[in-house]
Order: sequence, then C-alpha cells, then structure tokens
Amino acid sequence: MELVAIGFVQSPLVDRASAPKQGYEGAPDAWIVLEEDVSKGLDGLEIGDEVFVLTWLHQSRRDVLRTRPRDDPANPEQGVFNTRSSERPNPIGLHRVKILAIDGRRLRVRNLEALNETPIVDIKPVIEADEKRVGDGAVR
Amino acid sequence: MELVAIGFVQSPLVDRASAPKQGYEGAPDAWIVLEEDVSKGLDGLEIGDEVFVLTWLHQSRRDVLRTRPRDDPANPEQGVFNTRSSERPNPIGLHRVKILAIDGRRLRVRNLEALNETPIVDIKPVIEADEKRVGDGAVR
Repeated sequence: MELVAIGFVQSPLVDRASAPKQGYEGAPDAWIVLEEDVSKGLDGLEIGDEVFVLTWLHQSRRDVLRTRPRDDPANPEQGVFNTRSSERPNPIGLHRVKILAIDGRRLRVRNLEALNETPIVDIKPVIEADEKRVGDGAVR
Repeated sequence: MELVAIGFVQSPLVDRASAPKQGYEGAPDAWIVLEEDVSKGLDGLEIGDEVFVLTWLHQSRRDVLRTRPRDDPANPEQGVFNTRSSERPNPIGLHRVKILAIDGRRLRVRNLEALNETPIVDIKPVIEADEKRVGDGAVR
C-alpha cells in the first residue's frame, strides 16, 4: 500500500506551531499544485466547488495511539481514531476546502491548514453522503 | 509514504458488481475489525458516533485519470478527482458510517459499501468542518 504524491501544497504556513488546528480557524488561502502526469484528473472541477483534499502529514509521529484532542492538557486522553490529530498510524489529513481559482494544474483553495510542501495524495468532491447523518431507518 | 493496515472490513459484500456505489444505497451492516496493536486508538468512540472510515481499495486500477461517474455511459467523462470512483492514483476510499455496536476491537457499522477484506487505513470522527460549506466571509 504505497502512496504516490499527486501534488504538493504551496502555503505561507511553514511550521506546525503557527498552523491552525482546523482550516476554518484562520488558515491562509493556499495553492494545490498537481503533478503534470495526473493533471487530467482535475477535469470537471470548477471554481466554487467544495472538495476533500487528502494529504500525507509527513511531519507526524505514527506510533501514537492515545492523545489529548487539540494538544490541550485540559482535554482527557482519547484514542487517536476519536480525534483529528495528525499523529496516528497512517498520517493522512482530511481537509474540506473550497476552490477559489483554477490555473492549469494549480488550484487556489480556502481553508487548507496543511503546511507548505505537504504531499497531496487525493482530491474528492464532497457528496451528500459526507454531510448527512446516517438515518436509523437507512436501508440495510 | 507507506500505509499500514490498521484493520479489515468484514462484510457480506464480496464482489464489486454487487456492491452499491455509495454506502447509503443499500450496503449491508458490516464489521470493522481493528488489529490488536492499534486497538487502543478506538478509546472514546461510542455507539451512535459517525466517523469517516478510510480504506485501501485494493482491487482498483491506479492508472485511470478520467472516468464516467458511477460507471454510467450516459455521464460525460470527468477527471477522477471530480468523482468518487475507486479508480484513481491513490485508491483511498472515504466512507461516512455510523457505529452501531462496539465489541472490543470490533466496530459494527452502517453504510459501509467496501468489500469484505478491504484493508482499513484510518478512522476519523466527523467534525463540523466536514459538513459546513466554506463561507465566502471565512477568515483568511
């Protein structure tokens, strides 16, 4: 299970201490720069679309299983799968962003809190199923 | 960027032809079975919680960049990053599911359309930022 970088983040954020915990908490607008050989994969995306960007949080520890959410000592320790901590066995980041501009194989996006040069591994459109609570009466 | 399997899917779904395209379209309830060595990462998750499960879609082609959404020949071809197709450079699946039961390191979940034995690479709680449109007036 080997990931390839499909692109990289270009952002003014350069260190973890200054990066917001979540994109909507003041992340500066950033660029996603796709590799030439996968840029056809962007066809159909438009300005204003909301997408999930999946990143590889390359500076994260992978041997952490319990942590305090938001690195706040006041929060009780939780399993990492109940947090969005970047420290987890597979440090994949999930970021909902909005496309502000498209320039060839570059996307300008809002609300991406990933650091400059973070590898990008996937982009997916947001669909209804991502936003809707699973109804108790759902089809089995 | 090497992923490790943190667990596997146990589901009655065994082939792609019979699997729904999205979990809410009739996926049977399934189990997520975590590996022993990462099971502490589940601490704090509760019945009723909604989480994103990230899977490795091991049967998918990785050399596809354009496809017809939902494999429907009537749909115009799109870049894969504008679809949820499993065929993409990094075949990571993103599934919003609801936890129905917890039995040690096994989670019973609703709305998981992944096939039996699909490797799981991450579990993340759904947070507000996943569900909310990025406001035009967001802080830069």
